[in-house]
Amino acid sequence: MGELGVDVLLLSVGPDLPYLTGYEAMPLERLTMLVVPRDGDATLVVPRLEAPRVVERPELFTVVPWDETDDPVALVVSLAGPVATAAIGDRTWARFLIELQARMPSTTFRRASEVMGPLRAVKDAEEIRALRRAAAAADRVAAALQAGDIPLVGRTEAEVSAEIGRRLVAEGHHQVNFAIVGSGPNAASPHHDASDRVIEAGEVVLCDFGGTMRVDGVGYCSDITRCVWTGGLAPPSEFRDLYAVLHEAQRAAVDAAVVGTPCEDVDAIARRIITDAGYGPNFFHRTGHGIGIEEHEDPYIVGGNCEPLAPGHAFSIEPGIYIPGRWGARLEDIVVASESGPDTLNTANHDLVVVDA
Amino acid sequence: MGELGVDVLLLSVGPDLPYLTGYEAMPLERLTMLVVPRDGDATLVVPRLEAPRVVERPELFTVVPWDETDDPVALVVSLAGPVATAAIGDRTWARFLIELQARMPSTTFRRASEVMGPLRAVKDAEEIRALRRAAAAADRVAAALQAGDIPLVGRTEAEVSAEIGRRLVAEGHHQVNFAIVGSGPNAASPHHDASDRVIEAGEVVLCDFGGTMRVDGVGYCSDITRCVWTGGLAPPSEFRDLYAVLHEAQRAAVDAAVVGTPCEDVDAIARRIITDAGYGPNFFHRTGHGIGIEEHEDPYIVGGNCEPLAPGHAFSIEPGIYIPGRWGARLEDIVVASESGPDTLNTANHDLVVVDA
Repeated sequence: MGELGVDVLLLSVGPDLPYLTGYEAMPLERLTMLVVPRDGDATLVVPRLEAPRVVERPELFTVVPWDETDDPVALVVSLAGPVATAAIGDRTWARFLIELQARMPSTTFRRASEVMGPLRAVKDAEEIRALRRAAAAADRVAAALQAGDIPLVGRTEAEVSAEIGRRLVAEGHHQVNFAIVGSGPNAASPHHDASDRVIEAGEVVLCDFGGTMRVDGVGYCSDITRCVWTGGLAPPSEFRDLYAVLHEAQRAAVDAAVVGTPCEDVDAIARRIITDAGYGPNFFHRTGHGIGIEEHEDPYIVGGNCEPLAPGHAFSIEPGIYIPGRWGARLEDIVVASESGPDTLNTANHDLVVVDA
Repeated sequence: MGELGVDVLLLSVGPDLPYLTGYEAMPLERLTMLVVPRDGDATLVVPRLEAPRVVERPELFTVVPWDETDDPVALVVSLAGPVATAAIGDRTWARFLIELQARMPSTTFRRASEVMGPLRAVKDAEEIRALRRAAAAADRVAAALQAGDIPLVGRTEAEVSAEIGRRLVAEGHHQVNFAIVGSGPNAASPHHDASDRVIEAGEVVLCDFGGTMRVDGVGYCSDITRCVWTGGLAPPSEFRDLYAVLHEAQRAAVDAAVVGTPCEDVDAIARRIITDAGYGPNFFHRTGHGIGIEEHEDPYIVGGNCEPLAPGHAFSIEPGIYIPGRWGARLEDIVVASESGPDTLNTANHDLVVVDA
């Protein structure tokens, strides 16, 4: 905060608060806000009815509960004091920022990620262990999918999505964050919502799923994508060729994710292989995103991000190729940059597995 | 917008966007924003990889996808134009408001709920049908709890919470929003997280749960609280007395929720009964909240809200009494204000049911 000229940090919903305190604010209209002055003690302003949820840590922060007819914004303003610069949590609801600005007219507001992003992006050994544990649990669900233990043909995408969610929990996740199931032409929509479409034999099913696994109250995320081909027969050569390009691009990007390499160079390596194979316009998203308490966080593996990878950076490598109206594929692992090279946390089979069911 | 002097409405994550368009933005770092000029056509700015999720409605809005290396904030700024006043969705991430403000220095930003709140608070017949359907599904889960079909004693709160969630989905909800299970002393924490505490015989279990049931893409919420007493024997008279006060307060507040009555008066009626019985400090939250696409929305049944109830207002009535370290109880129904009086959507047994299991 000193380096960046930030006088007070104001954190509400989102991952910065649990990262610092172990407490996660409820995403509701009652304001929860941690006020962290640069040179003073931190105070957690919390609705009284949620105060019993807080595990107090007097060495870190003081709890100040507010009653239903109190004005929590006034409370935050008085705790923050007449500061020049405040940094507010990126996911804080805009309504609270508008109310704070109205009562702190001489204060400049900046994004708290300027302060918190670099801290959170570099994972320590304990955080990497937590990510590895979550990745291993997601791998076991992916292995079940590839082994044909999760029936596909004749079920809807939504049913398969629900089963993947149940398995994520059974494998130790505390929360399912998403379970994309895109079958046939729906695999061409990268963020497809699992729908009522019934999965058929002889088509691709793209499954991209992840959840949060808590350790001591703070949760770390998993995120994996695997594609399988249904119906027991080999996919058409055209799709096999597409997948071979994807597989090569993904592996090359993982291999390139060494300490010191700019994030955009890792993106460029996957993109060049896919472009050289003629699929350039069909890979229209970045190669990856950082992961930790949040599913998507710094560093982003995207064109324009010239930040070099540092030891402890954890991120996804997930190129995709999408042919609208027809099919698509994506292959994703979580990788940690380390002095000894890229450490791939996911080990589930990277091939396009053909399943009978 | 004309009445309020708002030139442009900017909607992102949260319920206003699906209310107007049927499309719900993904709560991720890639900006989705509907730009609605007061006198022009609406445009939905959306990440290209999420564009396939949008059901286009050209009569309502135009879709403008942005690519991974584009600047979506610049796109929104150019669509909004050099306006004096913008209203931004209440739940929009603060980071986007900060970025917009930096590039629209002459624009005053206000909360979009000034525009959207009154529109959303009054439900039409179709919305009330959707709320009634969701309430009936939640009632069936409550009835299973009261019938002893959901085993309690010997299980953890988290296990019971997970079963309630599964039953909400089995009864037709598309999403579980929360399933609070507070047993014994944990019932004294109104927003208790279901924990690893094992439920015992001869104690209260407070269950407060709800989910979203979609109709044509837009979801409406359920929310109900019932308490049961475990172990098959009558609760101690002290707890029966507490519950009788609560039951009376809840019924009186429901009866008072007639069109024209200020919200704060409904709150005051429940509060007076509880205070007169000596439990005033033990009821430390408001009596209720509006409900619709959002679990909590206008109108709030709270001291200081002098807005009179209007036909179509839908809200919870949920007083509670909490004795820290010991036990607690809450009783909640969803009610719609109508010309023919309060219409209680939940009909599950309001008594403190004793269950064997």
